[in-house]
Amino acid sequence: MRQSFLFTKTRKEAPKDEVAQNAKLLIRAGFIHKELAGVYSYLPLGLRVMEKIVEVIREEMNAIGGQEVTLTALQDKKVWETSGRWDDSVLDVWFKTKLKNDTELGLGTTHEEQLTALMKDYIASYRDLPRYVYQFQTKFRNETRAKSGIMRGREFLMKDLYSFSADQETHDAFYEKTKQAYSRIFARLGLGDRTYVTFASGGSFSKYSHEFQTLSESGEDIIYIDKKQNIAINKEVYNGDSLSTEEANNLASVGIKSVNLEGPFKAIEVGNIFSLGTRFSDAFELNFVAQDGSKKPVIMGSYGIGPGRLMGTLAEVLSDENGLVWPEVVAPFRLHLIALFDKEGKVKAYTDVLYEELTEQGVEVLYDDRDQRAGEKFADADLIGIPYRAIVSDKTLAEKVVEFKDRKTGEVTKVSETQLQKMLAKKTD
Amino acid sequence: MRQSFLFTKTRKEAPKDEVAQNAKLLIRAGFIHKELAGVYSYLPLGLRVMEKIVEVIREEMNAIGGQEVTLTALQDKKVWETSGRWDDSVLDVWFKTKLKNDTELGLGTTHEEQLTALMKDYIASYRDLPRYVYQFQTKFRNETRAKSGIMRGREFLMKDLYSFSADQETHDAFYEKTKQAYSRIFARLGLGDRTYVTFASGGSFSKYSHEFQTLSESGEDIIYIDKKQNIAINKEVYNGDSLSTEEANNLASVGIKSVNLEGPFKAIEVGNIFSLGTRFSDAFELNFVAQDGSKKPVIMGSYGIGPGRLMGTLAEVLSDENGLVWPEVVAPFRLHLIALFDKEGKVKAYTDVLYEELTEQGVEVLYDDRDQRAGEKFADADLIGIPYRAIVSDKTLAEKVVEFKDRKTGEVTKVSETQLQKMLAKKTD
Repeated sequence: MRQSFLFTKTRKEAPKDEVAQNAKLLIRAGFIHKELAGVYSYLPLGLRVMEKIVEVIREEMNAIGGQEVTLTALQDKKVWETSGRWDDSVLDVWFKTKLKNDTELGLGTTHEEQLTALMKDYIASYRDLPRYVYQFQTKFRNETRAKSGIMRGREFLMKDLYSFSADQETHDAFYEKTKQAYSRIFARLGLGDRTYVTFASGGSFSKYSHEFQTLSESGEDIIYIDKKQNIAINKEVYNGDSLSTEEANNLASVGIKSVNLEGPFKAIEVGNIFSLGTRFSDAFELNFVAQDGSKKPVIMGSYGIGPGRLMGTLAEVLSDENGLVWPEVVAPFRLHLIALFDKEGKVKAYTDVLYEELTEQGVEVLYDDRDQRAGEKFADADLIGIPYRAIVSDKTLAEKVVEFKDRKTGEVTKVSETQLQKMLAKKTD
Repeated sequence: MRQSFLFTKTRKEAPKDEVAQNAKLLIRAGFIHKELAGVYSYLPLGLRVMEKIVEVIREEMNAIGGQEVTLTALQDKKVWETSGRWDDSVLDVWFKTKLKNDTELGLGTTHEEQLTALMKDYIASYRDLPRYVYQFQTKFRNETRAKSGIMRGREFLMKDLYSFSADQETHDAFYEKTKQAYSRIFARLGLGDRTYVTFASGGSFSKYSHEFQTLSESGEDIIYIDKKQNIAINKEVYNGDSLSTEEANNLASVGIKSVNLEGPFKAIEVGNIFSLGTRFSDAFELNFVAQDGSKKPVIMGSYGIGPGRLMGTLAEVLSDENGLVWPEVVAPFRLHLIALFDKEGKVKAYTDVLYEELTEQGVEVLYDDRDQRAGEKFADADLIGIPYRAIVSDKTLAEKVVEFKDRKTGEVTKVSETQLQKMLAKKTD
């Protein structure tokens, strides 16, 4: 894409009411636009990143047998009364609205209820199990405060997967499979080395649930890490004080000794997985006829990742003092091609052709073809954070090279056009 | 995809409260699920169709210079007060809700206001124009009645594009370009021969706006057609009665004589394009500095297509008494491979391999590997409406052929496996 075509521009300052580092950078770079506290629009650069994050997650969800759907935002009061979660005192993040005839509706904060009710149409026998259903869907949560940028929104995209199993063994095996899929997602996004599978409070159906926590000073969670085992525990379960015998036994049952825990560390919850047991299948009578003819409730689990929160996390933990630093796999473009125009038009003529060639070779290029000064172009490129940069000027033309810069390391090399094409081709997988 | 893996099943009857033919068929075939009147979830088959429709539209919007964004559902009251459309008496389809501190919010019914306010950050000079910005976004409209299935929803996906131009000539040229892009979209979806560019009432900024109307008995609009010119006019502008001199002159100004009009015909509004003039740029003071240094308001247009309504329209006009009939370009799969199992397992062994081969060749195959009877499999295949069907049985194995059936024409031929692969490869473009 030609940068002169892109309608967004970078800006020096973020809005004054914006406190989160992720939102400040993303707004300044033109990736997102703040509509209200916790409510952000995605502009072309931001949408490209978001779609790539979504695609990584989709691939991993399909690989473990997920089937994609899109449920709705508008929620039927009756469905939520069935599970007892309609009342604001039970679920305190509801946005509610009304039809013209005064029928109350909710805006979906999560979709256990709606999907469990839906699956009653499709699950009757053990032959219909297991099923794994997921979606990328906008959630609405009426947060009292929303000061973490796109890491905690009032309106945000969520990948939520729900599992429906006939027995505990099948459930446990899938739960483990999802844990591994989640680890692959965070590794692919470049967060693997600072993201920990974390034991957290489990609700009614298991001793612990699992969170995925990414170390970051901007995190809202506190964790303790067992570095040997590469796992962690949330402060809500273990806060560093001495433990009761029961607590120590619980920890021991998952292989953790408090003596091995380091912390506290701040972390961002980038994913969570829950065993739901029969909480929802009991409420909705989602039962199946087992092989022995008996009627049994379906065992469920829920598995969430917020692509927007992940994007915010990448902006928090991978950025530097000059701006964003995207990992290749989700960068809005692979190469930022910057032309420093000369008066004769030689640089423009050369770079226009190079841009077309690279684009034809399938390299995603943002081509800075604007009239701006070199310093402004470089500052913008640093802020936008595309992984690789190629600079063409009258000097590089004279030397028959292109200046190649790695955004992350800052390393600059002079390469021939052929070398450039090879490097960009090699790095695509 | 193996049909045994797909969690949805066909059903004989649609829900009793469902009156629209499109929703009846799509629910019975397992493409959608009704949550509330006018509120539908998209299940795997339906989501595949939806995404293909979206991709056709996206390609055409990008081809005319559109830049994709995603704005938000939650709307700031202040923004809508700026244009004077916050009040329910002005815009009568609002869903409204509240933050915990009682701040009122709306759910987006359309996005002129939000985008115009946003573009103030990015448009300052004639150099920043023209800009064409679009999104696929969920709209919420509090319709009093919602009885047309996915053709008129309370929550539905909309592609809305907005144009920002410096002068009327640029605006008019883009308006015409969009008209052509829309015609290409409807042609690609197989609706070209029954879809008419239709003059409709224009609002304050032009004599007429343009709708795209697809002939269908289930349509809510009435149009009159000038078959020679291949254009139409909406009943809201011309109702077949004798015209006043002014009305006749208006029609004449766009090349229509009432004597050439046939009708009335029922039609579905599948798209619309509006010149907005400076209605919104005046309200939001979206101005730019022109080349001569003067300050001028931006000239805007809006251009809508509902992918869900299009899917509903395809279900209405292309289906037959046995079920859905998808055009190739948006069909959930290209081939429905049906195995009629024998006891020895020969058919299964052969079809399993054929399925893998075709999938590897990039053919999208739904493989009916279920134990159901032949009649049930054929009825399901008719209902689901995948364009091509290949049947494998012990008879076809003995003859070393596969039975190939065209869903639309019903034509059946016996072909070799090699021929089958060629036919499917040829038809991919």
